[in-house]
Amino acid sequence: MSFCPNCGAPIEFRVPEGDDRKRNICSATGEIFYDNPRNVVGCIVEHEGRILMCRRAIEPRLGFWTLPAGFLELGETIYEGAARETREEAQAEVVDAELFAMIDVTHIGQVHIFYRARLAGSHYGAGQESQLVSLLAEDDIDWPQLAFPTIYRALERYFADRRAGTFGLHTESLGANDWKAMQLARSPDGGRT
Amino acid sequence: MSFCPNCGAPIEFRVPEGDDRKRNICSATGEIFYDNPRNVVGCIVEHEGRILMCRRAIEPRLGFWTLPAGFLELGETIYEGAARETREEAQAEVVDAELFAMIDVTHIGQVHIFYRARLAGSHYGAGQESQLVSLLAEDDIDWPQLAFPTIYRALERYFADRRAGTFGLHTESLGANDWKAMQLARSPDGGRT
Repeated sequence: MSFCPNCGAPIEFRVPEGDDRKRNICSATGEIFYDNPRNVVGCIVEHEGRILMCRRAIEPRLGFWTLPAGFLELGETIYEGAARETREEAQAEVVDAELFAMIDVTHIGQVHIFYRARLAGSHYGAGQESQLVSLLAEDDIDWPQLAFPTIYRALERYFADRRAGTFGLHTESLGANDWKAMQLARSPDGGRT
Repeated sequence: MSFCPNCGAPIEFRVPEGDDRKRNICSATGEIFYDNPRNVVGCIVEHEGRILMCRRAIEPRLGFWTLPAGFLELGETIYEGAARETREEAQAEVVDAELFAMIDVTHIGQVHIFYRARLAGSHYGAGQESQLVSLLAEDDIDWPQLAFPTIYRALERYFADRRAGTFGLHTESLGANDWKAMQLARSPDGGRT
């Protein structure tokens, strides 16, 4: 940030009085502009034992598989955002939603929040940001083809809970190095090469 | 937003291609600037049956009572943010933290997330943003003197769960009209005047 978004004056990057972090401050008015983590919200949608997944039609990770999810928008609740993303990306409506996972991804300033839910009816299809939307059984999931580490982790937790017969709420943190470890663990030789 | 924070060019407020909401867009480069909800994170800290509360030394709601809480910062997890706010505002460390409430406050673009926890040791005191920090029993809480509706709701849920003998995770939404209803319900005549 170089210019004040409100008046166009140069921005100073310094610690304001009474604070302990550098902030963007307008050199003309003293207004402080904060930068905070953003929430990405989505759904694990189950239908007849299979999970609704989207092959991405956009960057980043074009062509890789994801759960319907995206940035929470102003004016909507976390659940409303998760349901909207499912509608936009997978043309699907959900019912019986329960909060399932909240994953801090601090190195990119994001919190990823997933509901688990059931598909309402049986309709789904590819939205604008998806090449293809499919209901996949656990064995059909191609783990190295997943788009993001939080998708990977949320699905791992989901299938583990489903096998255990009880769903919990999972709060955890994923760092920059976790992604590679996940991919290695699922590679055909268990990461030995 | 009137000026591009990166290049200083005028901002246009319009719907970008492939989107369905108006965004702030740089008229020179086309860069899109998104505005998303922010997370406020805090703790309900219990010690010998009483709750750690802070009387605010800053606006808004100077002089009113709150739980230690504040905006989640870049680079920290939700739990780390909640613990940091408790350290900053109440000079207290926490242990045994469990996620307790996630409250959407859409009309101000915020999500308020509270952990419940126990005080580590017995030290606490007023941080810079607090006039006074006290351990209050449920009967000592002056409900009309609470600073914010989410504080009110989180404490209500906490004491109800404690009486019931089991703590849940509470996800809900508070609107602009809920605050008045809460205050009336707790006024001496139950809101009849």
